[in-house]
Amino acid sequence: MDNETADRIRESFEAQAMMHTLGAQLTQVADGAVEITAPILPTATQQQGFGHAGLTFSIGDSAAGYAALSLLPLDCEVVTAEIKINLLAPAVGDALVARGHVIKPGRRLVVVSSDVHALKDGAETLIAVLQGTMVPVPR
Amino acid sequence: MDNETADRIRESFEAQAMMHTLGAQLTQVADGAVEITAPILPTATQQQGFGHAGLTFSIGDSAAGYAALSLLPLDCEVVTAEIKINLLAPAVGDALVARGHVIKPGRRLVVVSSDVHALKDGAETLIAVLQGTMVPVPR
Amino acid sequence: MDNETADRIRESFEAQAMMHTLGAQLTQVADGAVEITAPILPTATQQQGFGHAGLTFSIGDSAAGYAALSLLPLDCEVVTAEIKINLLAPAVGDALVARGHVIKPGRRLVVVSSDVHALKDGAETLIAVLQGTMVPVPR
Amino acid sequence: MDNETADRIRESFEAQAMMHTLGAQLTQVADGAVEITAPILPTATQQQGFGHAGLTFSIGDSAAGYAALSLLPLDCEVVTAEIKINLLAPAVGDALVARGHVIKPGRRLVVVSSDVHALKDGAETLIAVLQGTMVPVPR
Repeated sequence: MDNETADRIRESFEAQAMMHTLGAQLTQVADGAVEITAPILPTATQQQGFGHAGLTFSIGDSAAGYAALSLLPLDCEVVTAEIKINLLAPAVGDALVARGHVIKPGRRLVVVSSDVHALKDGAETLIAVLQGTMVPVPR
Repeated sequence: MDNETADRIRESFEAQAMMHTLGAQLTQVADGAVEITAPILPTATQQQGFGHAGLTFSIGDSAAGYAALSLLPLDCEVVTAEIKINLLAPAVGDALVARGHVIKPGRRLVVVSSDVHALKDGAETLIAVLQGTMVPVPR
Repeated sequence: MDNETADRIRESFEAQAMMHTLGAQLTQVADGAVEITAPILPTATQQQGFGHAGLTFSIGDSAAGYAALSLLPLDCEVVTAEIKINLLAPAVGDALVARGHVIKPGRRLVVVSSDVHALKDGAETLIAVLQGTMVPVPR
Repeated sequence: MDNETADRIRESFEAQAMMHTLGAQLTQVADGAVEITAPILPTATQQQGFGHAGLTFSIGDSAAGYAALSLLPLDCEVVTAEIKINLLAPAVGDALVARGHVIKPGRRLVVVSSDVHALKDGAETLIAVLQGTMVPVPR
């Protein structure tokens, strides 16, 4: 991946206040594949003390969006047109890792997916899968 | 709606740290229909300064979940099995209002929907629609 | 609705061999709202003898697509970018009726929904809800 | 995979009249992975002459459902609770191949995915991805 694209993604990520609020970090950036890692902060839990679905969704959606952006011209941004999440297991552990991928790039629509794993004592458990559509828009 | 059910929903909502973090409030609770209102905090924005999709999702999903819970026995909780969001317009304005509804109640699965509106100068704009499945679990 | 738009939709519907195979008919066409009715043919059942999910999907998706098309310029066609179906009850009865609606029209994307009902002895049961995205393409 | 499970899946598939109507065949059955192949019959096309989304959906959904069933006790059937399809390319070619997989098995819910490819002159093109939830029910 060229430096300009990587820089643009990092810059866009840094500009997302929500990612800061959730303590999320961009932990890998490659062509068509982006990883975001976040702790399960006590400020991001649901009523049973597990990570909130909104946390899992936020990092899953962002990882998918940046995976799409990594394949687009530098003068583009992306917005999520739609995305669906299936939640497989409670968000419990030391951190969550979301890995976004591009399934089908396109000029008008980019179809993406994302897997979210919970990390606990070095082991990963798949807790959610997302499938959606990103739309390139002028920056 | 009986007081016990309303109290249980309020209690569960209060226990969601994520809702506090987002500044969200439970603004209406009825049988099969729940409303959550949240400001667009500067801590919950995306890279263009609009409300993050994770904010829209979080209150839309929670409103749908509590709509399901409002029709279930008092010893139940619900978890989201899956939910899909279509984003229609940027989250811009003074606040967001999510209204969850039950489409089809069931003992094993509750099918739900949620509309999220942006409020600006007293006018509402529909910014997202969600459709999903909640699963009753023992409290 | 003007006659040209109605004619175009009828013409496009007639050109869908799949609709003939399923015995489906266009039973209502209005601006942003289209209804398709189909019998539950013995050739369109699943293993328990109920209507196949593919039948329910096919008419639900087409009703939503034509609802989108009804709001577009005459030189457009639409294709389904994505659609999600929640199945609520078995497809049992005399016929199925799918009603498609436009949630949000747009030049690039049209967000749609569709309800599918089973008709039995004059009564309707909601058996499925669909939510999706149509993309206008040149005819 | 044991013979009893394979036989049960073949038997259930044969009982689906819709699969016969579409000319679909069960071309592979393994634990948690099932493949269905179908021609693009002139009776299953949409208005532009491509395979109808209802064809792609029908075999994608069935492949995912049988993938789920392959991991369940012999006295179960499955029904689709919900499934979402993203359509990536027109259904053009000699045949369509749907490959269903289990993402997460469960006693109450089985989360599944399915890829549908178009075959043309020996080459495969991915035309659709599905992600959904199957529910085990008594046979």
